[in-house]
Amino acid sequence: MSVSHRRPVPLSKAYRLLNHGPTVLVSAAHDGKRNIMAAAWAMPLDFEPPKIAVVLDKSTWTRQLLEASGSFVLNVPCAAQADIVQTVGSTSGLERDKFQAYGLQAFAGELLDAPMLEGCVAWLECRLLPEPHNHQQYDLFLAEVIAAQADERVFSDGRWHFEGHDALRTLHHVAGGHFLKIGDPVAGKNLDD
Amino acid sequence: MSVSHRRPVPLSKAYRLLNHGPTVLVSAAHDGKRNIMAAAWAMPLDFEPPKIAVVLDKSTWTRQLLEASGSFVLNVPCAAQADIVQTVGSTSGLERDKFQAYGLQAFAGELLDAPMLEGCVAWLECRLLPEPHNHQQYDLFLAEVIAAQADERVFSDGRWHFEGHDALRTLHHVAGGHFLKIGDPVAGKNLDD
Repeated sequence: MSVSHRRPVPLSKAYRLLNHGPTVLVSAAHDGKRNIMAAAWAMPLDFEPPKIAVVLDKSTWTRQLLEASGSFVLNVPCAAQADIVQTVGSTSGLERDKFQAYGLQAFAGELLDAPMLEGCVAWLECRLLPEPHNHQQYDLFLAEVIAAQADERVFSDGRWHFEGHDALRTLHHVAGGHFLKIGDPVAGKNLDD
Repeated sequence: MSVSHRRPVPLSKAYRLLNHGPTVLVSAAHDGKRNIMAAAWAMPLDFEPPKIAVVLDKSTWTRQLLEASGSFVLNVPCAAQADIVQTVGSTSGLERDKFQAYGLQAFAGELLDAPMLEGCVAWLECRLLPEPHNHQQYDLFLAEVIAAQADERVFSDGRWHFEGHDALRTLHHVAGGHFLKIGDPVAGKNLDD
């Protein structure tokens, strides 16, 4: 039995899980069905209470599930999961359960039923905000983050620290299964100081 | 006189300049005044015509300028500019011109008057979409990308390629002047293949 490295992240720091622009996996469940898909277009929208924005195409089944349930999870995957991200980003879960098909392990959220994917490095449980104009016009979904967790090996005290954990670096999608992993720290100093 | 490495990016590929989640600099001009600020919360919103979303706090002067002019530029800065990003992200341009104060070189866009910052690795000229509810309620601005350019040393044929150009790697803000630069490629393959 493996030791879990998941730790709660205070809501005031939840935006930092997405601040550096990783590609995410969006998961949702409704009425006994569940799905997970990849989305490169997600970002923080507010600090506290934390909010996020994510773009979800009308054709996706995950979108149907999250519109029905009013909630979803943003899972932040890592380099070790590149094949999983590419696969769940290019297949449909309408005809078969992707978790079963690809042997993906899921666990329950603290507050939501949406499946959270094992092996990711952060998880944000989200409650959809009712903004139908944005949904219809722009495929844009805004949500409040109601719980967050991260893998303490690479995120603690509100900071990412990937040194020594290359396989846990976040993925940043370019196109067509080509990703860049996040790299090394750079400090920026204020030129007035 | 230095050779320019700026090349036009086809609008159909413009989303790829932001797809991997870099921190951006937002610049705008109106009525003889100009400003530039940092924003970590920006993402693509659509492919073609390309659209983007960016979050801009009510307190920022750049927001006032872009609301007045209806247009702005997203500049994608690089590791060599970390101090500039931190500085324009933590100072106000209301009382002095940041370009003059910090010796920043700007050039004109192909279609817009908003200043484009020399030394960045990509530039997206954007026309604001009239969505006042999103502005007021969420500080969220949606825009159509009407022209795009990139530094051909690190972006060509619709792909980023940073190998051999560490100083030109994009910046991804964590918090408080701590950035991560984008790292190396990872390929994801579809597990069904």
